[in-house]
This record gives sequence, structure tokens and C-alpha cells, in this order.
Amino acid sequence: METHSTQQVRVLCARVSEHMGHLVTVHGWLHSIRHLGQLAFVNVRDRSGIVQCVLEGELAKTPLSLESVVSVTGSAAHAPKAPGGIEIHAASVRCISAAAPLPFEINKKTIGARLDTLLDHRVLSLRHPQLHATFRIQAALAGAFRDYLCQHDFTQIFTPKIVASGTEGGSNLFPVDYFGRQAYLAQSPQFYKQMMVGAGYERVFEIAPVYRAEEHHTSRHLNEYVSLDVEMGFIRSDEELMDMEQEMLRYMLEKVAAECEAELAFLGVDVQLPADITRIPVAEAQHILQRKYGKTSPKGDLDPEGERLICRHVAEDGKPAFVFITRYPREIRPMYAMPAPENGALTASFDLIYNGLEITTGGQRIHDYEELTASIRSRGLNPDHFAGYLDVFRYGMPPHGGFAIGLERLTSRLLGQPNVREASAFPRDRTRLTP
Amino acid sequence: METHSTQQVRVLCARVSEHMGHLVTVHGWLHSIRHLGQLAFVNVRDRSGIVQCVLEGELAKTPLSLESVVSVTGSAAHAPKAPGGIEIHAASVRCISAAAPLPFEINKKTIGARLDTLLDHRVLSLRHPQLHATFRIQAALAGAFRDYLCQHDFTQIFTPKIVASGTEGGSNLFPVDYFGRQAYLAQSPQFYKQMMVGAGYERVFEIAPVYRAEEHHTSRHLNEYVSLDVEMGFIRSDEELMDMEQEMLRYMLEKVAAECEAELAFLGVDVQLPADITRIPVAEAQHILQRKYGKTSPKGDLDPEGERLICRHVAEDGKPAFVFITRYPREIRPMYAMPAPENGALTASFDLIYNGLEITTGGQRIHDYEELTASIRSRGLNPDHFAGYLDVFRYGMPPHGGFAIGLERLTSRLLGQPNVREASAFPRDRTRLTP
Repeated sequence: METHSTQQVRVLCARVSEHMGHLVTVHGWLHSIRHLGQLAFVNVRDRSGIVQCVLEGELAKTPLSLESVVSVTGSAAHAPKAPGGIEIHAASVRCISAAAPLPFEINKKTIGARLDTLLDHRVLSLRHPQLHATFRIQAALAGAFRDYLCQHDFTQIFTPKIVASGTEGGSNLFPVDYFGRQAYLAQSPQFYKQMMVGAGYERVFEIAPVYRAEEHHTSRHLNEYVSLDVEMGFIRSDEELMDMEQEMLRYMLEKVAAECEAELAFLGVDVQLPADITRIPVAEAQHILQRKYGKTSPKGDLDPEGERLICRHVAEDGKPAFVFITRYPREIRPMYAMPAPENGALTASFDLIYNGLEITTGGQRIHDYEELTASIRSRGLNPDHFAGYLDVFRYGMPPHGGFAIGLERLTSRLLGQPNVREASAFPRDRTRLTP
Repeated sequence: METHSTQQVRVLCARVSEHMGHLVTVHGWLHSIRHLGQLAFVNVRDRSGIVQCVLEGELAKTPLSLESVVSVTGSAAHAPKAPGGIEIHAASVRCISAAAPLPFEINKKTIGARLDTLLDHRVLSLRHPQLHATFRIQAALAGAFRDYLCQHDFTQIFTPKIVASGTEGGSNLFPVDYFGRQAYLAQSPQFYKQMMVGAGYERVFEIAPVYRAEEHHTSRHLNEYVSLDVEMGFIRSDEELMDMEQEMLRYMLEKVAAECEAELAFLGVDVQLPADITRIPVAEAQHILQRKYGKTSPKGDLDPEGERLICRHVAEDGKPAFVFITRYPREIRPMYAMPAPENGALTASFDLIYNGLEITTGGQRIHDYEELTASIRSRGLNPDHFAGYLDVFRYGMPPHGGFAIGLERLTSRLLGQPNVREASAFPRDRTRLTP
């Protein structure tokens, strides 16, 4: 309960049932209104839910527009036909902030407008219970990520997003004018999270935006997104990272299933927990795709269709649609990727594909200074441009590795949303810079 | 315990005492080495602490350099003279990653190098236990912020940092080239957090970087910093926001005192909890400064010396050095600041000064569409440039307000650091863009 200037104490809609027979005041948005003779049935929606209010006589004539912010005071009563079996018999209604006519309806079961319209009027579209649920679930996912890592002795870090150079040689970077100097927006906290491992924190994570100036305009890409980054020292191999990510995802999804039961039920989402996630070397995955679906893949990699098909393949075995693709060739992985112990042309790295889309890239990193500078040179890059990063490898660096999960992709895959923009409150893409 | 390729299970330094009389393996950085006749005393440091290892005979001659990553296996034994009363009698020592000669010593009680040198070699300087502690404490502060807000029904949000326009008319913005269009780095999530309140989440928070292209080069300014942002709907007044921030800070500092006991003790910091934080209108604060210290202030505001002196004033009353300064005049607050109910020339806004430095700006916001557009026009700004933001005020907006805490400033004030850069792992300032 919260105190308010109306004198009455505010009761959240979901808590009205605790005050049966008593006078309560609810504050919220006017979700729907229905006139029936001398009565008006008004549904008020707040962050906790919706409650029906019954207005009689003169009160029923109060001019009210949908989505206005209102305050209703009245007595809480049982009403078997009302949602939740409860209604408020209104004694007074006050309009706190009147709403203009809406560009689309948000009180129907599904929302009719096109995605672009919904994104143009984001504040309004996010009030629709279905769209609203997405970002509660997203917050729960990010919270569970942090909780799991804190329980496992990881330290949260905050690293700069304005950087002097890219992590992978300079492509896909947004330029920033930094007091007349050329700077860029960070594509990932890759270098900084490795540096914080080497700074003695050993196990670190970051939850922060990253930037990719990719020209792609697809349902899978955002130019700014939230990266859930993990890096840990003293690992034996990339297998340990996959073990850890699998356990962490299980924890995160279990926690979201518990914390967001109502939101998930509302969206009709049944959370499938990953058990032991199958690990398939990319070369073998390509053979499977060729043999089973006649699908040809690009050299050393899977394309979006390949990602969808390989998930169908593992899901056919009755498992949830998670699959680790491993052992990518060196030429398609960054210069810091650790060569595979059994074959130096491959890397100890992996992607995680979830319901048909890559949500994670990870792997063990090179920790030897000489090996790393050689790798940088082999890409035609100049080690001098990476001096701040390379410093850590000169002063004692443990074997280490990590991974990153795209928060919007994880959310949209969990919820079965066809477009990743649906899982970004205010997406940034090739053409969209507002709101 | 963690398994490792050395076959032996890794034991953290702080856990060696649980294995007395048994063979243990520790992995970590070589903190110090001391030769004494046929013996070498080697301190190994990992994320949990430091343990002494004794090397005898041939083993004592192992060439080892400070800060190398090593693995030591031996039996855990009582040793009254060793730190913690424990040592490892080494049976084998392995160098995992050798360190080059260090640019400065990091195994003395205090670190001798200048701040710029420490920042240039950040990965190394952060290994010094004192500097290391700062970022554990910072992580605990951020974690406690989130925990408090989640317990009070707030939803974590993630909003874009690439924006089409500034929140306050266009000064101090870093320009970004966004696919050939002019964009900027967000100075604050101000508009977006208000929009998420209006999107029905009511209570939201964000932990994310913000950007200020201020030319200042002072001990108080960073050009990129982490903002702990809060915004809540259905408030009565700015008093409610101050009540809430005060309770939240008490929670955060209590939690950090409990979670980081060792780090705080190491830094000699005694955490002072805020009780009821004094609230002083800025005009009155100016009078106090004038009367008590002969200090003149700028119009409607306090300058840095004024912030220090007003803290001295409240601390003299035996209270911790927290003080809310309230009722700033409209002309020095942003266009969205709510006018004070008793005097329209003032605002229902506040700053929080902590140990001599402003760490928070907050206040109630205008929620009426007409009042807000009038306020925008009164600043000589064009409401059309704020269309996406203004949308929320057209479709029902509750009374609301919020505040933001600068994470680095909070950290540095708590720890008594003279320069806020000490509380940023990789600070960005007028001249510093690396590492």
C-alpha cells in the first residue's frame, strides 16, 4: 500500500481482494469501459493487474477516455462474474491525466497494429498486457543471470563503451567524435572483460549495451543491444565454459518460470529447460544438414537456415531446441580465439543455438603473449594498435575464456517472437533512431 | 574447489585451511618472493586471498618472477608465523604464465605510482589489494541497488544510448555517425525512464553508462560514467523520492558493510549510515554558507566549495555527511522539472551531497502535456524535437519523479578517494581514451 494525496491509501489492483467490504482507492490506467443502462463498468489497470469498477447513476456519466490515468475510490465486493471475482463499487472517480484518442486499441487479447506502428508508439503499445509481459520477463532473465554469477563468485564489472579501436580490426564500428579525436562505440567488452580477469578478479560479468554498425536489416539484428558477458580464468578448456553456460541457462529459465508464471502463462509460453545440451562440431553439423535436409552451408559456418535446421534436428530427438556448435575454423573466429588442442586449424570456441537462432558466441582465449601477438599479425593487424589490451598478457595471464548472450535474442527465442525488435523496448536499427 | 588439468583439484587460497595435512593445489599470481638460505617463501594470490608457500632445496631455485601465474602443489600445514597461520610445503611449482619486469611494485601496503601511471597500467594496478577492493565494493553497491529496487517492485529496464537528440537541448553531447545520420550518446536515460513509467511499469530502474561531453578536467568529472537511475509513478511529491533514496542508501551501505567487510577493513573505511538526511532549500543553504563560512554562492546553486562546506555544516551536528539540497530555481533545472507547489519560480527537485560532493540529482517531473510543452517553449526549445518523448504525456501519465546516482562518485565518496577516476576501472576523460 502506498500513501497518496487523495488522502486514501492506494491499493494495488491485485491486492483489492485483501480489503473485501472496505473502502479502497486504486490508481491506474483506464483499460476499458462498458456502459450498460445506468451502469458503467470500468477496468482499471496498474502494474499489478486489472480490477473492475462499477459506476452507478451520475458517476456512470463521468466523461472518461481510454488510457487516462484515474483514481477510483469505492468498496471492494465479491462479484462472481467479474475478472478475479472482485469489483469495486465506486463512490468517486477522478481523472488524473486525460488521454487523447488512441492510434490503436490496446485492450483486446491481441494487438492489431503492425510492428513499426507499435514501435513508433512504444509507450502505448507496451501497455498491452502481452507486450508488457516481454520486458518483465527480460528483466527477470537479466536478474537471474546476475544472481547465478554472484552465487558463483563472479564480480560485476563496468567497462567503457567509448573505445579507441575495435576488438576485431575495425569493421562494423560506429564512429564517435571524442573531443575532436576519432573514437568508436564498443562492439563488445571482450578486451576489457579479459583484462579484468587478468586484473585478478578471475571471474567477471557485465550487463551493458554493445554496438554493431552492421548494415543488415533483418529480423535477427539490432544495431544496439544488451550483452550478457561472462569471462572466467583458470579454466581447462572450452568444455568447462559450455558446462557452465548450460547450468546457468537452466538456472535462469527455472527462475523466470517461477518469477514470471503469470506473464508466461499469459503469453502461452511453456519454458523448456535445457538438460545436457548436445555439442556438435561445426563440420559434423554441416554433414548432418547435408545428409538430412540436403542443405549446403557456407565454409566453416552455419547460415540462418542452417541454425534453424540444426535445432530441428536436435529437437527431433525429443530434447529442447538448444545445441552447441563447436570447433569453428580459425579463419572465421577472432584473433584471440584459442586453437583447438587436437587441431590448430580449428578453435576451442562455440556458438549456442536456441530455437533456431544463435544467442551466444564463446570460447577459450589465447593467454600466451607471443602466441597472441603472432595471431594478431597473422590477421594482417598491428599489435601496437592493441597495446593496452596486450599489457595484461605481459604480466601473468591465466588460461581463460568466456561467452556472451544477447539479451534480446534470448528473450525473443524464449517467447517465440519472430522479430528480435519485439524484445527491445526501444530498438535501434538501420533506419530507426526514435523514439 | 575447481578441477584443473594438473589433475589436482584447485583450492582457493582462502580455503587451504580446510585441508590441513592434505595435499592441495593453488593457482594464482606470485605476489611476493623472499629467499632465506635454502628456502624460498612465495606468496600466491588469487581472487580469495593470499597464501604462503615454502619452497625447499632445488625447488627454491625455480626461476620465478613477480606476478607470474603459478600453480603450487604441496601439503597444507599450520605455521604460526605465516599470514593466516597457514602455509603450503610445496612439492611442485609450475609457472603457467611468466610476467615481464613490473613498471611499479604492487606488493607493498600502499602503491607508490602516480594516478596516471596506475591508469596507464590498469590491469596491473588493479591487482594491488587496495585498488582491487574498490571494484568489489562498487559491484556490491550496484548489486544492492538492484536488490533494494526489486524488493520494492521496480522493473529493470534497458534503454538506448544512441539517441536522436539530447534531453536538455543539445549541449555536452558526443556526436555519433549513425549510418550517415547525426546521432548522439545519451546524457541520461531521463526521457526513456519516464516513458517506461508511462508504459505501465510504474517503477523502473536502469544501471547503464551515460555520456557527458563536458570539457571539464577536474577530480569530480568523468565523460562516461555509470548512472544508477530510478523513476517511479504515482508519487505525491519530491519528499517521497527523498524518503525512498534515503532508505535505499541505508540498505545499500548496510549491505556493502556486510558483504565487503574485509575490503572495507583493508581500506580503513568505516561505513556511516545515513539516518534522517537533513533537507535544506538551496536559498537557505546559501545563507548558512554566507553566515557561517563567509562563502558566496552562484545564483540559485552551490559550487564545489559550497558542497564541501554544507557537508561540514551538517557533519558538525554529529550526523553522517549526507545532505539533501532542495528547491532549486527553475532556470537552473531542466525543462521537465516540476514547479514547487508553493512557489512556481522554484522546483520540486533536489540534489544529494555526500561527503562534500553531489552524487544525485532528482525531483518530481511535470506530467501534464500542456504544462510540459509550455515549459519546453519557455526554454526556447521546439516541442516538435521531443515528439517521441511527449507522446507519453498525451496518453495518460501519472504524477512521477525519480533520481540518478553516479556510481563512481558514490564509490569514491564512500571510500574517501580524492579523485573520482580512482572509482572507474577504465576512466574516460578529456584526454584519456585508453586503455
